[in-house]
Amino acid sequence: MIPSIEWTSNKVKMIDQTQLPHKLQFLEFDDFRDVAKAIKVMNIRGAPVIGVAAAMGVALATIEYKNLPKEKFLTKMEEAANIIRSTRPTASNLFWAVDRVWKIISTYPDDPKNLSELVVEEAKIMAQEDINVNKNIGKNGATLLKDGDVVLTHCNAGSLATVQYGTALAPVRAAIEEGKKIRVIADETRPRLQGARLTAYELQYDNIPVNVISDTSSGLLMSLGKINKVIVGTDRVTSDAVFNKIGTYLVALAAKDNNIPFYVAAPSSTLSLNETVKDVTIEQRDSSEVSNILGKVQIIPNGVECINYAFDITPFRLVSAIITEDGIFSPKELLAKYK
Amino acid sequence: MIPSIEWTSNKVKMIDQTQLPHKLQFLEFDDFRDVAKAIKVMNIRGAPVIGVAAAMGVALATIEYKNLPKEKFLTKMEEAANIIRSTRPTASNLFWAVDRVWKIISTYPDDPKNLSELVVEEAKIMAQEDINVNKNIGKNGATLLKDGDVVLTHCNAGSLATVQYGTALAPVRAAIEEGKKIRVIADETRPRLQGARLTAYELQYDNIPVNVISDTSSGLLMSLGKINKVIVGTDRVTSDAVFNKIGTYLVALAAKDNNIPFYVAAPSSTLSLNETVKDVTIEQRDSSEVSNILGKVQIIPNGVECINYAFDITPFRLVSAIITEDGIFSPKELLAKYK
Repeated sequence: MIPSIEWTSNKVKMIDQTQLPHKLQFLEFDDFRDVAKAIKVMNIRGAPVIGVAAAMGVALATIEYKNLPKEKFLTKMEEAANIIRSTRPTASNLFWAVDRVWKIISTYPDDPKNLSELVVEEAKIMAQEDINVNKNIGKNGATLLKDGDVVLTHCNAGSLATVQYGTALAPVRAAIEEGKKIRVIADETRPRLQGARLTAYELQYDNIPVNVISDTSSGLLMSLGKINKVIVGTDRVTSDAVFNKIGTYLVALAAKDNNIPFYVAAPSSTLSLNETVKDVTIEQRDSSEVSNILGKVQIIPNGVECINYAFDITPFRLVSAIITEDGIFSPKELLAKYK
Repeated sequence: MIPSIEWTSNKVKMIDQTQLPHKLQFLEFDDFRDVAKAIKVMNIRGAPVIGVAAAMGVALATIEYKNLPKEKFLTKMEEAANIIRSTRPTASNLFWAVDRVWKIISTYPDDPKNLSELVVEEAKIMAQEDINVNKNIGKNGATLLKDGDVVLTHCNAGSLATVQYGTALAPVRAAIEEGKKIRVIADETRPRLQGARLTAYELQYDNIPVNVISDTSSGLLMSLGKINKVIVGTDRVTSDAVFNKIGTYLVALAAKDNNIPFYVAAPSSTLSLNETVKDVTIEQRDSSEVSNILGKVQIIPNGVECINYAFDITPFRLVSAIITEDGIFSPKELLAKYK
C-alpha cells in the first residue's frame, strides 16, 4: 500500500479516505487548521495515523509561528495544539502524539526557528516508528495464525489506519508474507463503512483475498464455522476494556459464544492503562451519518433521529489476547507489563 | 397503519415496501406469478404477511384456472403452488399458508369454479385471522412492558410485516393503547434496512416515538442502560432455535450479556417444532444487496464479493420468552404446549 500520510517539502500529504474505494486521491495541506479539519471530518482516520497527522499538524503550526517572539509563539502554539486535540475525543494516539511533540516545544521554547525543525523531524520519526511498530505487531501476531485461517476484522485497522502496514491487518500481512494462506472477512462497519470501503480496498490492492459482510452477519458465519479468528484494532485500551469502533463488542460476544479467539492489535501508544471505562468520553457523531449513507441515500423517514455513538466498549473478559509491538499478552499480562 | 395487503375485487393490493419510507405506493396484481415475484423481490416481506400473500396468490391461480377440467386444473394448480412456494425458503408461514389453502383444493377438487370461491374466502379469512392473532400477541406481550420502557427491535415485525398491527411491535402498540409510555429503538437492519425504512416509517406514522441506530450500536446502548427490553419477530421457530433476520443472534447475545430480556413474538403459524436447526435452509441472497445499498450507492471496490445470508439462528438458551396469540412461554413451555 501507498503510505496514508507523508511529510513532503513542508506539507502534509494524505490519502483522502472519504473518496475510497472509488478514487485514490490525495490532499496536501500547509495549514494546521486544515489538518485538524481533515481529522475531524475523517478524510484521514484510524487511531495510529491520526496520531501522526496530529504531530504533523503541530509541526505545520511551528513553521507558521516560528518568526514570532517566544511568548507570542507559545500562546499561538497552545491554541494550535488545542484545535488539534479537540478534533476527535476517543483515540488515545491523538493526545499521545500532541503530548510527545509538545515535550520538545516545552524543552526548547527559546528559539522557535530551530524548534520548528526539531518538531518537523520528530513528526517524521513518529511516522517511521509507526511503520516499525506495525511490522512488529505483524511478526508477533502472525504466530497466532495458521495456514487456511479465515480472519474476521471490524472497521479498518489496516494500512489506511496507520502510516503503512496496519495494526489488525499486520498479522494477516505478515502471515501471508510467511507463505500462509489467509482469507479476510471484513465487516462493512456501519455507519461510515470503513470495512467495506477501506479494508476491502487495501486488501484487494495488495491481492489479499477478502469478502465483505453486513455487520449483522458475523455471528451466523462464526456459528457456521466460516470464521476462525477475529483481529481488530483499537483506539484506546484502558485497564479494563478495549475501545474500538462501534460494533466491536457484538463481534467479541459472538467470538466468545463460538470459542473463536478475539485478538486486539494495539501499538503501545494506544495503551492508556491508568484509565478505566469511566474516564473515557465516547464520541457521539451526527445523526446524518446513520440516516444518509455516505451522504447519498437517505434511509429513514424525514423527522426521525438516529443515535450515533462512534465507539464500543469491549470488556477485557471477552479479549483473548492483545498484540503489541513487544509481544502477545493476555489482558492480565498486559497490565503487568505496561501499567 | 393501512393494511399491508388486501383482497379487493379479485385483485391483490399491497403496499410496495421497496418504496418506503419515501413513497406510500400500492401494487395491484391479478396474476399469481406477479404475486410470487413481489414476494421474491420483497415488494412485500415479513413472515406473517407473505403467508397471506401466498394464500392470495393461490386464490388468484384458482380464478385463472377455474374453467379447466379437473385433471388439468390440478396440474396447473400444482405448478402455481410450487412457484409460490419457491419464492423464499426460510419463512414457515409461506409453506403453512400454501398448505392450508391446498387442503381445500385437495378436499373439493371436483368443481374448480366453486372451489375458487372457497379458496378466495379462505385467503380473506387468513388475512383477518392474522390481525386477530397479532392483537392477541399485543395483549399478551403488553403485560411484559412497563411505563417508560425503551424497546429495541430488529428488522420490521410490525404492521408492515403482517396484514396489520404487527407481531414484535404488537406489544408496544398494545402497551401504548393501555396508556404506558414506550419508546422504540430500531436497528437499521442491514443489508435491506427494514428497520430504518419500515419500522421507523410505521411507528412515526402512528406517532410512536422511535430512534434508529446502526446495527453495530445495540450492544453499547444496552451496556449504557439505554435499552430495557428486546422484542423481535420470527420467520420460523424450530424445537431448538428462533430463525429471524440476520443480526438477531448478535442482539440476543448482547441482551444476555446485559441481563436484558429478549422476547420473540411468534404467531403459532410460525412454529415448526418438529424441526431442528439442521432441517432449515438459510436463504442466501445476492451479493449486491450488501454491496449496493438500496441499489443506489456502491460501498465496496469493484471485484470484491459479499457474503449475504438473510437469516440468523438464535438458540433457545438466549431467548427469555416467546409471545404467541395464546400466551407467554419459556422455550420449554412452548415445546410442552405446541409440540
